[in-house]
Amino acid sequence: MANVGIMGAGSWGTALALLLHKNGHNVTVWSINDDEVKMLSIKREHESKLPGVKIPDDMEFTSEMESAIKGKDFIVLAVPSPFTRSTARNMKPYVAEGQIIVDVAKGIEESTLMTLSQQIEEEIPQANVAVLSGPSHAEEVGRGLPTIVVIGAKTKETAEYLQDMFMNEVFRVYTSPDMLGMELGGSLKNVIALAAGIADGLGYGDNTKAALITRGIAEIARLGVKMGGAIESFTGLTGIGDLIVTCASVHSRNRKAGYLIGQGMSMQEAMDEVKMVVEGVYSTKAAVKLGKEYGVSLPIIDKVNEVLFEGKDPREAVNELMLRDSKAEHTALPWKE
Amino acid sequence: MANVGIMGAGSWGTALALLLHKNGHNVTVWSINDDEVKMLSIKREHESKLPGVKIPDDMEFTSEMESAIKGKDFIVLAVPSPFTRSTARNMKPYVAEGQIIVDVAKGIEESTLMTLSQQIEEEIPQANVAVLSGPSHAEEVGRGLPTIVVIGAKTKETAEYLQDMFMNEVFRVYTSPDMLGMELGGSLKNVIALAAGIADGLGYGDNTKAALITRGIAEIARLGVKMGGAIESFTGLTGIGDLIVTCASVHSRNRKAGYLIGQGMSMQEAMDEVKMVVEGVYSTKAAVKLGKEYGVSLPIIDKVNEVLFEGKDPREAVNELMLRDSKAEHTALPWKE
Repeated sequence: MANVGIMGAGSWGTALALLLHKNGHNVTVWSINDDEVKMLSIKREHESKLPGVKIPDDMEFTSEMESAIKGKDFIVLAVPSPFTRSTARNMKPYVAEGQIIVDVAKGIEESTLMTLSQQIEEEIPQANVAVLSGPSHAEEVGRGLPTIVVIGAKTKETAEYLQDMFMNEVFRVYTSPDMLGMELGGSLKNVIALAAGIADGLGYGDNTKAALITRGIAEIARLGVKMGGAIESFTGLTGIGDLIVTCASVHSRNRKAGYLIGQGMSMQEAMDEVKMVVEGVYSTKAAVKLGKEYGVSLPIIDKVNEVLFEGKDPREAVNELMLRDSKAEHTALPWKE
Repeated sequence: MANVGIMGAGSWGTALALLLHKNGHNVTVWSINDDEVKMLSIKREHESKLPGVKIPDDMEFTSEMESAIKGKDFIVLAVPSPFTRSTARNMKPYVAEGQIIVDVAKGIEESTLMTLSQQIEEEIPQANVAVLSGPSHAEEVGRGLPTIVVIGAKTKETAEYLQDMFMNEVFRVYTSPDMLGMELGGSLKNVIALAAGIADGLGYGDNTKAALITRGIAEIARLGVKMGGAIESFTGLTGIGDLIVTCASVHSRNRKAGYLIGQGMSMQEAMDEVKMVVEGVYSTKAAVKLGKEYGVSLPIIDKVNEVLFEGKDPREAVNELMLRDSKAEHTALPWKE
């Protein structure tokens, strides 16, 4: 039995708190929002973000960081990506040398092009940072539906310790040493989810969407491998797996924003309609920058960028993708002559 | 402009006939079924298999093989996989030395474990056999929705010739030298589609399905690479891409049969209900044999096999998959120590 602090009481933080509690651990959940802490402490249900899922009486909620961090065997950092750096900065004074922090959000900071674990390490140098990623809608984890994720860490020991903490009969956990590949796949996939949403909004079918998903992950992998990630992370649960679940979901904000753009809205109109952070919009900018920096061609991501920020007509963007020079699918495969 | 013979007037044969006609080629479609030939010649629409899609007046239909083969620049073989060998045998006398035959069906012969192109080459040694595969519902190609496929051939020359014949602004074609990997991915993916259907039938969510798809293609790739296929074909359009489109479709017979089994039907009851060939059932047997022959562990495929043929309870099968020994996602990736 471990003592665990969860930073962030959104749907993912709450779902993981419930999972870890079910596994027999002592769980304390921190939220920056006093009202949320009171609501959760009294109602024992997150009515807006995880409706219908009962929160056990012995799960603690607090708005004081210190009590969710000090003495905990590990911390789960579950705040949205735009708040990761600032939250980490505030956490720093309470984190012990070598204390484990598992980041479960995804994103790339546009100004620095850093992943979330890199930002956390920069803000809390004494922490032992790990990541959890994979195809995992919080709502389904909250409802106990079978889910498989990957935990990435710097050492096998940390990864296997966390695997043991999280794993149960409906939540299978693999380990991986490739934190960078996991994080790049998890954040850049949101650009392709936007593209898939746009295709849906244009009224295209499953063929178009499957092609965009497959070619999209191929282009993310080209970039990610050049940056030092392992190809297996992009073709695995944290790459294509996560992308599949995002593109299948009617709840995904990225897919939904894309859908509205495909239906004719501008990027800003779609953002206003969705009313929440559309991570893929930021990731698109970061991806285009990374493509230039590493000299990798990103045809689908470039088209998404043109549609979002340069007023390109989405239908024209698809047509241009379809009619590029004819090519081999994988230029590295040799022909017999 | 080329002269093309299409063998088989099912939904895929008809959709490709329409595509090639639109590209400006002379198209002759053969069907073994006299009534189908008459119906298509008169009604100019395949009412049961491709309803609402108008067939142009200058497309010819015939039940005589010779006139669909002799003098044609290339032949498209579009009969269902159980009839590929027998159709090829009947075609043999009319096929010229080096004449191109593009197989567009998928399957592995259980008794010989041969792919369709291998069967065609055995029956028609003088043919130049190629394959076309990828995420491509016939209905959507018939309606002109954007689709991307791969053409595999023995030489770059043949592949690029066919690419040029098929490609247009809504049908993008890549080329590949890896016919074997393309065919193994295209047929074995049906086993995973059955598994995804079973998960849907059990009431599991998108997380479970995405995990099954991702881990399923990883296991097919392990086998396929050992057999000589290229990993890129399994992570590309003809592997994961085709699997995604199959698992997303409510029309897929494999997914539907799986769904019914997940809901509690036996394999035979599900087959009777679906009323058509469920390719994945045969591919499961072939896959299990291949796994044994090549010494490759296939945990998901083995569970599908137990559910189909050994009366294993599907829910128990999923539980057993979730609780196997905890593992690294990709055992080849090294840890820093």
